[in-house]
Amino acid sequence: MPRLYWEDFSVGHVAEYGPRLVTADEIKAFAAEFDPQPMHLDEEAARASMIGGLCASGWHACAIMMRIIADGFILDCASMGAPGCEEVKWIAPLRPGDRVNVRASVLDRRASKSRPEMGFVKFRFDMFNASGTPVMRLTTDLMLKRRQSVGAGAP
Amino acid sequence: MPRLYWEDFSVGHVAEYGPRLVTADEIKAFAAEFDPQPMHLDEEAARASMIGGLCASGWHACAIMMRIIADGFILDCASMGAPGCEEVKWIAPLRPGDRVNVRASVLDRRASKSRPEMGFVKFRFDMFNASGTPVMRLTTDLMLKRRQSVGAGAP
Repeated sequence: MPRLYWEDFSVGHVAEYGPRLVTADEIKAFAAEFDPQPMHLDEEAARASMIGGLCASGWHACAIMMRIIADGFILDCASMGAPGCEEVKWIAPLRPGDRVNVRASVLDRRASKSRPEMGFVKFRFDMFNASGTPVMRLTTDLMLKRRQSVGAGAP
Repeated sequence: MPRLYWEDFSVGHVAEYGPRLVTADEIKAFAAEFDPQPMHLDEEAARASMIGGLCASGWHACAIMMRIIADGFILDCASMGAPGCEEVKWIAPLRPGDRVNVRASVLDRRASKSRPEMGFVKFRFDMFNASGTPVMRLTTDLMLKRRQSVGAGAP
């Protein structure tokens, strides 16, 4: 049973999740399946590229971020998904051996006008490596069930 | 050797790539690794959820889109990556058995002020299923090498 509902997130709430170690093997496996560009797939080719060495696909970074926040809190939430992201920024290469954390910050919270049983919580997720360098950032509205939604009208 | 450079993409250029078949097995495998929410992981739990049946993680949809455009044209490009996405929209559930295509549209093109060897091409990528329903959309600036960059100054 979910433990966290829309009401449980207030603007200004900040939490940090992780760490997760990123390995060369998983970078190459993800790339082979979804993003087979040389800098994600092969150390030799990556060294010759402008990025100077193997780094994860930006979509792999997003997927790793998702797993960190899923384990961190989403799996405890009455989650109803997300309509998308306002912004995704790939700031620095995600490298083999990086140990990353994700900081979740609540930027905004609003009820749904059309669906009284849910609300939106706007999160910013910042991923950092162990030396504190920002690796990526994204902003998204999570849709969450309202705790007091049963039988309630729109607020 | 790359075949396509920054100069080869003009505003208004549109191309379509795919199709790619999405299977229940790959939806569940991606979810188990990156987004283990019930609607992505298990048919039974997904049927009981508000989404009414198994569907791919939004990040899986992004990764599938990446593979379609990689095979479609990115691997032929003098690509220098992307700084992020302006917008990602998950419009409709991506279901097992869906056969998806991606339409690439060039919205804008500009030289880099700081790096004369490259330029930006703003793409909108629209993913559709076989019945023409939009599944997702994203907008991103791809960084591409300029064909005439060798020894040239900023334009």
